[in-house]
Amino acid sequence: MCSNHGNRGVVYTGPGSVEIQDIAYPKLAIGNRKCEHGVILKVVTTNICGSDQHMVRGRTTAEPGLVLGHEITGMIIEKGSDVEFLDIGDIVSVPFNIACGRCRNCREGNTGICLNVNPGRAGAAFGYVDMGGWVGGQSEYVMVPYADFNLLKFPDKDQALEKIRDLTMLSDIFPTGYHGAVTAGVVPGATVYIAGAGPVGLAAAASSQLLGAACVIVGDMNPERLAQARSFGCETIDLRQDATVPDMIEQILGVPEVDAAVDCVGFEAHSHGCSHHKEQPAIVLNTMMEVTRAGGGIGIPGLYVTGDPGASTEAAKTGQLSMNFGLGWAKSHYFVTGQCPVMKYHRNLMQAILWDKVQIAKAVNVKVISLDGAPEGYNAFDKGAAQKFVIDPHSMVV
Amino acid sequence: MCSNHGNRGVVYTGPGSVEIQDIAYPKLAIGNRKCEHGVILKVVTTNICGSDQHMVRGRTTAEPGLVLGHEITGMIIEKGSDVEFLDIGDIVSVPFNIACGRCRNCREGNTGICLNVNPGRAGAAFGYVDMGGWVGGQSEYVMVPYADFNLLKFPDKDQALEKIRDLTMLSDIFPTGYHGAVTAGVVPGATVYIAGAGPVGLAAAASSQLLGAACVIVGDMNPERLAQARSFGCETIDLRQDATVPDMIEQILGVPEVDAAVDCVGFEAHSHGCSHHKEQPAIVLNTMMEVTRAGGGIGIPGLYVTGDPGASTEAAKTGQLSMNFGLGWAKSHYFVTGQCPVMKYHRNLMQAILWDKVQIAKAVNVKVISLDGAPEGYNAFDKGAAQKFVIDPHSMVV
Amino acid sequence: MCSNHGNRGVVYTGPGSVEIQDIAYPKLAIGNRKCEHGVILKVVTTNICGSDQHMVRGRTTAEPGLVLGHEITGMIIEKGSDVEFLDIGDIVSVPFNIACGRCRNCREGNTGICLNVNPGRAGAAFGYVDMGGWVGGQSEYVMVPYADFNLLKFPDKDQALEKIRDLTMLSDIFPTGYHGAVTAGVVPGATVYIAGAGPVGLAAAASSQLLGAACVIVGDMNPERLAQARSFGCETIDLRQDATVPDMIEQILGVPEVDAAVDCVGFEAHSHGCSHHKEQPAIVLNTMMEVTRAGGGIGIPGLYVTGDPGASTEAAKTGQLSMNFGLGWAKSHYFVTGQCPVMKYHRNLMQAILWDKVQIAKAVNVKVISLDGAPEGYNAFDKGAAQKFVIDPHSMVV
Amino acid sequence: MCSNHGNRGVVYTGPGSVEIQDIAYPKLAIGNRKCEHGVILKVVTTNICGSDQHMVRGRTTAEPGLVLGHEITGMIIEKGSDVEFLDIGDIVSVPFNIACGRCRNCREGNTGICLNVNPGRAGAAFGYVDMGGWVGGQSEYVMVPYADFNLLKFPDKDQALEKIRDLTMLSDIFPTGYHGAVTAGVVPGATVYIAGAGPVGLAAAASSQLLGAACVIVGDMNPERLAQARSFGCETIDLRQDATVPDMIEQILGVPEVDAAVDCVGFEAHSHGCSHHKEQPAIVLNTMMEVTRAGGGIGIPGLYVTGDPGASTEAAKTGQLSMNFGLGWAKSHYFVTGQCPVMKYHRNLMQAILWDKVQIAKAVNVKVISLDGAPEGYNAFDKGAAQKFVIDPHSMVV
Repeated sequence: MCSNHGNRGVVYTGPGSVEIQDIAYPKLAIGNRKCEHGVILKVVTTNICGSDQHMVRGRTTAEPGLVLGHEITGMIIEKGSDVEFLDIGDIVSVPFNIACGRCRNCREGNTGICLNVNPGRAGAAFGYVDMGGWVGGQSEYVMVPYADFNLLKFPDKDQALEKIRDLTMLSDIFPTGYHGAVTAGVVPGATVYIAGAGPVGLAAAASSQLLGAACVIVGDMNPERLAQARSFGCETIDLRQDATVPDMIEQILGVPEVDAAVDCVGFEAHSHGCSHHKEQPAIVLNTMMEVTRAGGGIGIPGLYVTGDPGASTEAAKTGQLSMNFGLGWAKSHYFVTGQCPVMKYHRNLMQAILWDKVQIAKAVNVKVISLDGAPEGYNAFDKGAAQKFVIDPHSMVV
Repeated sequence: MCSNHGNRGVVYTGPGSVEIQDIAYPKLAIGNRKCEHGVILKVVTTNICGSDQHMVRGRTTAEPGLVLGHEITGMIIEKGSDVEFLDIGDIVSVPFNIACGRCRNCREGNTGICLNVNPGRAGAAFGYVDMGGWVGGQSEYVMVPYADFNLLKFPDKDQALEKIRDLTMLSDIFPTGYHGAVTAGVVPGATVYIAGAGPVGLAAAASSQLLGAACVIVGDMNPERLAQARSFGCETIDLRQDATVPDMIEQILGVPEVDAAVDCVGFEAHSHGCSHHKEQPAIVLNTMMEVTRAGGGIGIPGLYVTGDPGASTEAAKTGQLSMNFGLGWAKSHYFVTGQCPVMKYHRNLMQAILWDKVQIAKAVNVKVISLDGAPEGYNAFDKGAAQKFVIDPHSMVV
Repeated sequence: MCSNHGNRGVVYTGPGSVEIQDIAYPKLAIGNRKCEHGVILKVVTTNICGSDQHMVRGRTTAEPGLVLGHEITGMIIEKGSDVEFLDIGDIVSVPFNIACGRCRNCREGNTGICLNVNPGRAGAAFGYVDMGGWVGGQSEYVMVPYADFNLLKFPDKDQALEKIRDLTMLSDIFPTGYHGAVTAGVVPGATVYIAGAGPVGLAAAASSQLLGAACVIVGDMNPERLAQARSFGCETIDLRQDATVPDMIEQILGVPEVDAAVDCVGFEAHSHGCSHHKEQPAIVLNTMMEVTRAGGGIGIPGLYVTGDPGASTEAAKTGQLSMNFGLGWAKSHYFVTGQCPVMKYHRNLMQAILWDKVQIAKAVNVKVISLDGAPEGYNAFDKGAAQKFVIDPHSMVV
Repeated sequence: MCSNHGNRGVVYTGPGSVEIQDIAYPKLAIGNRKCEHGVILKVVTTNICGSDQHMVRGRTTAEPGLVLGHEITGMIIEKGSDVEFLDIGDIVSVPFNIACGRCRNCREGNTGICLNVNPGRAGAAFGYVDMGGWVGGQSEYVMVPYADFNLLKFPDKDQALEKIRDLTMLSDIFPTGYHGAVTAGVVPGATVYIAGAGPVGLAAAASSQLLGAACVIVGDMNPERLAQARSFGCETIDLRQDATVPDMIEQILGVPEVDAAVDCVGFEAHSHGCSHHKEQPAIVLNTMMEVTRAGGGIGIPGLYVTGDPGASTEAAKTGQLSMNFGLGWAKSHYFVTGQCPVMKYHRNLMQAILWDKVQIAKAVNVKVISLDGAPEGYNAFDKGAAQKFVIDPHSMVV
């Protein structure tokens, strides 16, 4: 086996800072135990995610030294003896959720809340605080456990490398945006409001289009990101304006409500309007209830947390949100929360990519960077660049 | 036609007070327009509901003079020319939701949010503030519009009168409790926590049993109501104790979580524990998130409002609740809110009653009273009687 | 009211023959009973359907004198007193299913099997043998009962007339094809096989695309119709070839099976291959089981009948089909049959048309003809023209 | 490890004959490959199934020498190194479907059609012809692969042994009957017709009751089995009578149709009536279409095969059934076929057993026998005994 490689990765070094450091080459082991169901991947691509930013901004309890990265696509270069249906050389998409495939939740398809991979709570992820302590994949090599269960193999390697800018989105944001749209009830002919034009919001918009939505409206305060949303056919509303969201929706649709709404912002939400963009963690949720028609659904892929040490209010520090829940109740809304169970969707979305039914890389405006360029990517993304940064540690992206 | 009847009904006369008054005999009309799709019912039974209490306690903007009552079972004594499939003499259950059967929401089965029967918002009900101004049915006679669509005819009159204590629950609380259980994901083998042992809570408990639940746990602070829950096989937890709800659930199940949870309390919730039972409107919702397993569902038939003039805090007055939403998100919970669309369920639940598969009247401890006894019934219910009061205005209940 | 119009319509006059005849101007009545819930429509468009052909070919027990036509779009010119939410002048799509909106099935959304509009069986349609005796709408004027429930109003008249070639497909074949795709389990990324490239098959293909299918394969023996399928991006297989269907699918997909299959042919199916195209009524169903992957779904909007006087075998005359049901069982297939309940889908599909998310008129190759041109249209369609004939009785189509 | 045991099992020795023979003690291996994800079970109970009879009667291509048995409950006595969440000593239920937990179908919960455990087709089972060649479990010891994924662990060993007569039904017939009921659409208040009062039919009946059905009607020609059905509250119809099934249903329900129907007979069906009970493989399916209401569902857990060498007609020998499919189409029926994916249901049904919500052992009339008594059990069962034979190879059942 080939373990004489070195390894380098993106390491969180403290609030506002990430560095490329030498890190350990992965082993087929979990702690001291051999991990025969795992594989070692040569990382083909690994993306910077908005949720990485929560850590880097110091809004979590992440400790310096954490190797980041949960959006991973790779080539198998070593496998354990229990890996039966994958081979050395296969190119695979890694769901950001780590899942055992053997617990009650995994058996029911809820791989986002696997019971066996995180001693602290249900659900785990690579390179993420409180998500089980798994080493991240913004690196040259990474170990993935339960490989047969978790990994999605691309049917043809050449085709995979050709479409890698799109396929790399299957590890997280494409399924995550799609999950938001599906759980909000987006069907052909639906009108949809998507809060947030970051990569997840744009993925939710492209997903809504793939699902046949009649009109997809994206709201944000970042004009570049709104322009990006318009580039593939979305309507947009600029939340810096003083008009209310229902009024702006009415200008587009003729009615102030949509059939379905997707919150792609999460807890770091800010107040709308032309001034005072202070944090207001429930504003997106409350806006959703205002603009969703009675009986409509609200999908919430945007992250809400149980504790936020950097929050602006005491209530928000312990995850308390001031919600207009009575409004939602009066309108018979339903709310679906949580990490996307990537495996429910990634195969079908891969098919949609391979048959050219969706251009997800264009929708989120992929920019390929080197591993050494990652810190700059984090910085640009934090400043609101309307781009999705894809790290290419081995210069395999053509 | 027979319009030389008088009519008497239960009238809200101000905070804390209801009276029996002479009221107008109903007409087949809506405003000045003839209502050919309506019927006039001789009321067979009409129940006092916990949500009536919100008005009577002065916790709403209901105006004195309102004729109360939305849980109605009656015999058709007059019908409009457009009523094609019902006849004079039929005994019918009236869904508390008024629904046109012709709008988008009704066509989709969401009769709790009909778009045509309330100028103020989606959804209407008989005898209820902000619900469209329809005259209530705690009276001798009442008019029901869109009769062919709304009404559930009992197949046999004699059988109907024999089982009337059970069948009268089909107009609201049995479907409402059942909706809570269904939307929370109760299936055979599930463990369920139900907050609140009032009639809706008990109906949700009986519904969960009908749905095959393995174990139904009911929580309340009223020992009589908890005894009532135990009388038909529920486990109970007494919220006056200082133990936490998860701990008390663990004593019963061996684990501190249930598969599904149903909030049958709503916004007038009080803090738990052995002292200080002050109002804390989000406490039930927050407890639900604590005790529901990751991936589980939370059904919320309990009423939450957009405004509560009698609330104890400014936030609650405008319907703002301080929710631990981050916890629900971390556990991938889903939340289903709103008025129960009674028509989705009432026929099947009638069948379950007629074939003796459920004893809903026993579960909620029906007490039949006269129309003149209604004020006393309101009073006893408000004090926490473990009874469901069924008004029998024409002494038809045997 | 305006009842001094004449009326003309397409009348079945015997096997192989239809004529334009003077027919009665419709009344707001059902038999001798006034029909206050009905409207009279000035027919804007009315399409010739493949299922009309079954009658005209003499494959049913339809009697000469029947006024044909169940695909109707019209403008309201008279309405009964119980029509509350539609107005004179509204342009509306008429679902081909007649439905009361008041029976158990209608309440559950299954308007294709309404219990109150056909004494002979569940379900009714305009102008169709055994479907309740309702006068058809290939005419200048037609009466539609239960108008508030049944009709879909187009939001803007000018826009409606501009897009009328597309919108006229909402009365039957677009929802019918869509129902086939949905019930077969078509989702984004799915591969689909559609048997039959007639208008319903093409509508199922366009619907599958709208639903996000990765690859839609259409099979037929008519090269023009296959060319039509290719014109909007479908793959096709020519059933006149001697290759098996699985082999031809494998050439396209790399595997001999699809995720979902839709039978848009029905009982007048013919054997495949380069010669001997004799009728073989179960061949499509049996092919579906061959080509659908284990666990996949089979949607069957194609019509199967309980009796077929013109069938080639005694078994088929009584609706007995020789099915390879054991194969379907071994593959855990599910089968969904029956008339499409148009109302489940027409509003959403209208939205998809109005927002330009689907070009259904192009997909089915609409050809607008005059009422007098209808007999020629029937003839051309029977000969396999790759066109969908839309009758324009008042020259309103621009 | 403990491999110095001997082993004995039930071996098919030719049409009409089974014998207890010495067989190989199982190894943790598949062919020559080590099977680290497997366990070796000491068999606690293993049941004789109706589908075993198809083989023993010579109605399949099973070869003499086959070790029978796919309904297995056991105690783990050895485990491979990749078994992480089960321990030596655990008592577990084995789903009769063998499933890898790693293929597309398993990931979607369709473990009845696993793609990796049978080279011949989707889906495998222990001890069954054409189902992958896995050694059966009517024996003292058996090997189970993919143990962490497949096995259901009972939470408490003593409780498990106390309730073993019920729990042993979780490996096949309880989930199989339940699957039939669920897929037919049985919900609280539904009326249900179940064809066949063998163990699967009785399990479907008990399942329907657990699901809240209003009335469960079971049809069969065996009076003892019908008496068994009545013993737990089912209505029954005796198919030896000359009355039609709809007529007999009407006598019970007042209408000739049910909401849902479950075929628990399969391809060895016989004609009804007082004489001539010749085989008529489609008669149950055709009766289902007659008696199920328009819009109702038909669940088909009864086995249909692709080839039946012992069939009475040429068509049936190749699995061709003469179906009244047009009738089903006219009534908008849906049909769900295939092996039950046991893992979808077994955990919840275990909970229902452990909390005493269902008495499945009583419903199917369990009779515990020794391994040596198995041939006699096969014989009695084949003759129609109204019993479910449970083999207890180690005298562990108290």
